[in-house]
Amino acid sequence: MGRVTARRRASHLYDGTATERPETLVVEEPLEIRVNGTPLTVTMRTPGSDVELAQGFLLTEGLIAQRDDVLTVQYCRGAEADGVNTYNVLDVTLRPGVPMPDVDVTRNFYTTSSCGVCGKASIDAVRLTSQHSPGDDPATVEASVLTAMPDQLRSAQKVFASTGGLHGAALFTTDGALLAVREDVGRHNAVDKVIGWALEANHVPLSGAVLLVSGRASFELTQKAVMAGIPVLAAVSAPSSLAVDLATQSGLTLVAFLRGESMNIYSRADRIRH
Amino acid sequence: MGRVTARRRASHLYDGTATERPETLVVEEPLEIRVNGTPLTVTMRTPGSDVELAQGFLLTEGLIAQRDDVLTVQYCRGAEADGVNTYNVLDVTLRPGVPMPDVDVTRNFYTTSSCGVCGKASIDAVRLTSQHSPGDDPATVEASVLTAMPDQLRSAQKVFASTGGLHGAALFTTDGALLAVREDVGRHNAVDKVIGWALEANHVPLSGAVLLVSGRASFELTQKAVMAGIPVLAAVSAPSSLAVDLATQSGLTLVAFLRGESMNIYSRADRIRH
Repeated sequence: MGRVTARRRASHLYDGTATERPETLVVEEPLEIRVNGTPLTVTMRTPGSDVELAQGFLLTEGLIAQRDDVLTVQYCRGAEADGVNTYNVLDVTLRPGVPMPDVDVTRNFYTTSSCGVCGKASIDAVRLTSQHSPGDDPATVEASVLTAMPDQLRSAQKVFASTGGLHGAALFTTDGALLAVREDVGRHNAVDKVIGWALEANHVPLSGAVLLVSGRASFELTQKAVMAGIPVLAAVSAPSSLAVDLATQSGLTLVAFLRGESMNIYSRADRIRH
Repeated sequence: MGRVTARRRASHLYDGTATERPETLVVEEPLEIRVNGTPLTVTMRTPGSDVELAQGFLLTEGLIAQRDDVLTVQYCRGAEADGVNTYNVLDVTLRPGVPMPDVDVTRNFYTTSSCGVCGKASIDAVRLTSQHSPGDDPATVEASVLTAMPDQLRSAQKVFASTGGLHGAALFTTDGALLAVREDVGRHNAVDKVIGWALEANHVPLSGAVLLVSGRASFELTQKAVMAGIPVLAAVSAPSSLAVDLATQSGLTLVAFLRGESMNIYSRADRIRH
């Protein structure tokens, strides 16, 4: 697995007895994303699919809208520690004419310029920025297709099995065919990676797709689904209030507590057939 | 519970039958933290303990080191949506003489100025900034005291029981006495809240304390423990490679997979008696 996992010695204590043994851990390393040479953000991520991660991040933050907006993505040559490339700095060159991000975007994309920051302003910011609203997507999904997806994700999450430390995200067709799975120590990164995969495969906007996440549905993950034009977001665990509100106002179908034969549908339930 | 939980209608689907019912969700709302009137960061958090959250954040980012560094913390009066204070903007006034944060701190605290961002640089940044290194702390903890803590945290996590959507963080003495519990939709916020509580109670540096988190041990959470001078960090789930490396180099005892009678100790195992 290369840099995705690492071994560290640990003392395993059980019922008063200690055993020294090597443990397999998920690797966490910083990735700096630059745009046209200017540092934009640093995220703590699990190495692998970095080019997808960078492009997925730019798309879901509204900085690019399509594959052609990116000319090249390459590891920064000077990014060396002790003379060895760290592969932790990526420079994205945008197509001429694509505006450079406002510096403030790096600090917080959803801060309103006024003093009254609130959930409504956060939702409005996503809705104003999104070029791929899922609201009009005619896709529908059989409930039984959805309930089969968590097992499909777990089967595909190879690294999780060995480390217990990774979040997973997967894209499916509405027929339940698995399109892509990515894992990361950060759940937002796992989602950016699958969306970046879709961008490279010319599948954005992701109409007719289901995004499944292994954990909870936060505002941030819901925003990423909306920005990529995904009509159905399904989460194994709980949603937040702001995730439900954003989904409702964006026409995104939000499913959560997807476990066994059961699920809760918080918005656009008409897309789930049963 | 006021703004901590909210109700939204959902369609509960089980075995082909849909039931409309209200669901209790955890509230997620943005909190903008300002320092001396200048916006520093926005975090998506669950309302409550905001003053602790802001101060814990400033401490664990190295912007303040002690309680006296903060003069006042107050909700921004102009922070209104539709004429009502959102209580989503906090302004922290620092003691004269405490340096204002570099603007770049808001973007990423651990970016090195050179091109070679890497895990080692991230660790060095924490170690250079921390004024409360846990390395010399003589505290020790009985293994049986540690294994009892997850149940204590769960008992105290009242909101989780109703929403399933909250991360918990708790501070204990090495005798297993619960000092403080906080919950949040973001796990870093839950940790900042308990550390902010400790700052207000004049318990920083948190020598002789155990920090328990309900999820995984990431680099970021480990950093927060180091910055607060906590000698023992215990996590219910997996650690990352960089979390273990930071703990090892900072003299922090890192325990993970703390479940039932068992645990893994990744660093400074001498503090765990058995």
